[in-house]
Amino acid sequence: MRIEKLKEFIAEKELDGVLITSKPNLFYFTGSSPVLGGSLLVTPDDTIFLVPELEYEEARETSRVPVDKFKRGGELYEKLKEFGLRRLGIEGRISYSSVQAYREKLGVEDFVVVDDVIKELRIVKTPEEIEVIKAACEIADMAMMAALEEISEGKREREIAAKMEYVMKMNGAEKPAFDTIIASGWRAALPHGVASDKRIEKGDLVVIDEGALYRHYHSDMTRTIVVGSPNEKQRDIYEAVLEAQKKGVEVARPGMTAKELDTIVRDVIKEYGYGDYFIHSTGHGVGLEIHEWPGVSQHDETVFKPGMVITIEPGIYLPKFGGVRIEDTVLITEDGALRLTKTERELI
Amino acid sequence: MRIEKLKEFIAEKELDGVLITSKPNLFYFTGSSPVLGGSLLVTPDDTIFLVPELEYEEARETSRVPVDKFKRGGELYEKLKEFGLRRLGIEGRISYSSVQAYREKLGVEDFVVVDDVIKELRIVKTPEEIEVIKAACEIADMAMMAALEEISEGKREREIAAKMEYVMKMNGAEKPAFDTIIASGWRAALPHGVASDKRIEKGDLVVIDEGALYRHYHSDMTRTIVVGSPNEKQRDIYEAVLEAQKKGVEVARPGMTAKELDTIVRDVIKEYGYGDYFIHSTGHGVGLEIHEWPGVSQHDETVFKPGMVITIEPGIYLPKFGGVRIEDTVLITEDGALRLTKTERELI
Repeated sequence: MRIEKLKEFIAEKELDGVLITSKPNLFYFTGSSPVLGGSLLVTPDDTIFLVPELEYEEARETSRVPVDKFKRGGELYEKLKEFGLRRLGIEGRISYSSVQAYREKLGVEDFVVVDDVIKELRIVKTPEEIEVIKAACEIADMAMMAALEEISEGKREREIAAKMEYVMKMNGAEKPAFDTIIASGWRAALPHGVASDKRIEKGDLVVIDEGALYRHYHSDMTRTIVVGSPNEKQRDIYEAVLEAQKKGVEVARPGMTAKELDTIVRDVIKEYGYGDYFIHSTGHGVGLEIHEWPGVSQHDETVFKPGMVITIEPGIYLPKFGGVRIEDTVLITEDGALRLTKTERELI
Repeated sequence: MRIEKLKEFIAEKELDGVLITSKPNLFYFTGSSPVLGGSLLVTPDDTIFLVPELEYEEARETSRVPVDKFKRGGELYEKLKEFGLRRLGIEGRISYSSVQAYREKLGVEDFVVVDDVIKELRIVKTPEEIEVIKAACEIADMAMMAALEEISEGKREREIAAKMEYVMKMNGAEKPAFDTIIASGWRAALPHGVASDKRIEKGDLVVIDEGALYRHYHSDMTRTIVVGSPNEKQRDIYEAVLEAQKKGVEVARPGMTAKELDTIVRDVIKEYGYGDYFIHSTGHGVGLEIHEWPGVSQHDETVFKPGMVITIEPGIYLPKFGGVRIEDTVLITEDGALRLTKTERELI
């Protein structure tokens, strides 16, 4: 089915073939993920996955499409050249150097970017993909529980992250879905405050943003706590973010656009008077990549469909004071939205 | 000094500027590493680091060059457009989509790849870089010690990796330098056998390949052990690899080429009769990236200079039987080579 879509695109655009080389897309189309990468070529008549010799045995065991091997780059180009690729479909993320090599060594004359076809496929997850994402979210919940237990005055942010990532891996995760964020005190005002050597202090807001990579799929969630008793302002921004996030999960449903959802969530923050401090989009798609389609922002008019998986993650960031973000990975269902990360949200 | 080299290249090639966007090179030239990336523009008269608004505060604190911010891609292009970039130096790894955007939105007509200049700078490490790499190697030694303590019959490969990565992070590492490899039994024949759910069995050869990322720099080392008593063939291939690796560290010195070193190490394996089973190169450069220049292979004639950091990592892989690899990160000194990873090598 997936390869068939590429073949339809080949026919429609009158291409000699499509060449896929990015790791998430290689996994999506072949089921295999060689450490050193590989090249999947789809032509009107053939489908062949070319991998470095070192990866051949493992690729043969896991790939759903026929696998061939090459020794060095030179041999890869010789094999590809046989297909007479003049008009070639490629991913937009392919490197400039690769494009130059395809021109010079394969004689490719025209390139057509195939990204929209791949996006259209990957943006709606299959039931099998959803099961894996659910499992990745369960692991994220376990790591969050570990964080909530571990965080205390005097500990370093990095120590908390170390424990969380240990829990992830012991529960089957390949690794963290991204660099775990533990942003405490003034650092909580940094939306990307990757865990540092800062020690956690009493009264700190602590933003914990984490996820697990499980069988190639990602999860993503954020909780914020206060160490000790929250002050009034901390409570106020927490309440605003919590209400916005809950509202987002409540209203998200098929037929709504990503932009509409962003507006609804953003309006709650605005009503509380913190609109200028919600400095990022409401969310993003999650799947084989941690940030994929759709963007839940003012710039994305994607209409939600059942099977899409997104994050809903409003935040308020007050420079020098700190910040709050609450985030869940959410599945668009037939008639609404379902939180896949389930850790309690009332933490302040 | 680093930026000056780019300016010399600009003058020599009559460019309007050089644009750097990859994370390792951004860090190398600015000292800053925004999670969402950024664009460093160097022109004959200006140097400016453009980062997303979300990253502005952090970039201003860490960057050695002036920082400006942009809200969305559109604004980035507007700011870049003011510089009238017709002939632009870029990294070869830049995406095809970016190149298309620079053509359409900035009016760039010619692209010149700047990679060789950057390679020439980065391939020789400064004393400050070497200190950081040494620290990354010390953390790798700690993780290896944890692995040697943890490995025992019945444990899962992934559990060993979890413990090692916990030790890395508790000792200051940002994260593992790459997906930790724990390849036991038949999996030891896979050079890239990332830790799996396989349980370790008595008599297994176990290849442990790991490193730490510390302050943006990588370390890389491998040890191999047998769980229980080694049999004759296990001993035999271990001896071959150990002798080859020791020989490599002994002979590596300034003035020798990478190819010569590969030949010397490879010849030891060949003398033992396992030449056909040493299916990868002898090593690779290590620094801001886990695989950088030079390649220690038959295809790289780089002449070693003091300050280069490479791996020396011969291996023998017998399909279905298992494999052995021994690897250190090594610094080329004034008169020889120094192992920066120091875990004992006589483990069988």
